Amino acid sequence: MDMERFKKQLDFVLEIDKEKEIYRQTHISDYKRQENDAEHAWHMAIMIYLLKEHASAKFDVGKAMMMALVHDIVEIDAGDTYAYDTEALKTRDEREKKAADRIFGMLPDDQREELRGLFEEFEAGETPEAKFARTMDNLQPLMLNDSNNGGDWREHKVTKSQVMKRHGRNQLGSAVIGEYTKELIEENVRKGNIRDE
Amino acid sequence: MDMERFKKQLDFVLEIDKEKEIYRQTHISDYKRQENDAEHAWHMAIMIYLLKEHASAKFDVGKAMMMALVHDIVEIDAGDTYAYDTEALKTRDEREKKAADRIFGMLPDDQREELRGLFEEFEAGETPEAKFARTMDNLQPLMLNDSNNGGDWREHKVTKSQVMKRHGRNQLGSAVIGEYTKELIEENVRKGNIRDE
Repeated sequence: MDMERFKKQLDFVLEIDKEKEIYRQTHISDYKRQENDAEHAWHMAIMIYLLKEHASAKFDVGKAMMMALVHDIVEIDAGDTYAYDTEALKTRDEREKKAADRIFGMLPDDQREELRGLFEEFEAGETPEAKFARTMDNLQPLMLNDSNNGGDWREHKVTKSQVMKRHGRNQLGSAVIGEYTKELIEENVRKGNIRDE
Repeated sequence: MDMERFKKQLDFVLEIDKEKEIYRQTHISDYKRQENDAEHAWHMAIMIYLLKEHASAKFDVGKAMMMALVHDIVEIDAGDTYAYDTEALKTRDEREKKAADRIFGMLPDDQREELRGLFEEFEAGETPEAKFARTMDNLQPLMLNDSNNGGDWREHKVTKSQVMKRHGRNQLGSAVIGEYTKELIEENVRKGNIRDE
């Protein structure tokens, strides 16, 4: 038994508890309060499992779930960057790289490489796992926001072209879900929840 | 494309959002606030992946992760039952069975059976997946509580025999972790965080 290795794993487990205090712009059902990153990741992982039959390509479900579970861990240091905040997006990659160094760096070497690899694979969005996980990353807040009468879009005065730009990629993970999200967006434009400029 | 099936899946996805408002007795790091079920499940799933090498038997990691992610969904209707609340424990099984009927019943038949199966397998605690997931279900709040100087144990005047009874099963999932939790409990008894009657 390698106690140093075990201790590193447990220290990491305790460290990531902080993700529960990283709040997103998205609100949970009934617009009760903002959602945090841990809740979002939990929701995404279950969605990956339940909606896997709709994926555009065969993929490793367990790997995609783990990818979803850890994809926002860097935000413990880097903070959440709202998808429609153009200024913050400019510095996001640099902030998240530094965070990945520190946080994944707490793990034993092999697990540091593995988790950092999953994070980077998600960000690159090129493998079937990353494509499907990213589609879930978009679908999850879209569903919540739609259920809340577009409160988050209204608050941030989000426009159709902004939403479409983000959601144009959904079809990469799933044609069915890409079509569904497109229709959901159109519906919210008609309702005035998303600005049609 | 079976639209009825897809709609059932999405309705379930939105329904389980409510798990984010089911609060546990355990507090997150720095005793900031109570933890909710979704956060707890997220934490457990990552722990299963990271600590899998310590399991007593080979197991299907993806399956155990999904088991962890959904094991508390019934609490949306049944509420959280504190591990040391003897009165509430008497009615727990009946409340949770009814909740499982309704909530998993929202899914298409095959997925209803699959998720309900995972929930029941977790509760029975007999397979290697269930044993390891249950060990994580115990280790996760133990680590948080220890990091918070035993605040939750103190508040509920929890005794050593109560904690030992619960944690005696940890070794079923992992001898290493069973040993570790035993030591952690002893340490908290010495500190006065857990009552030594």
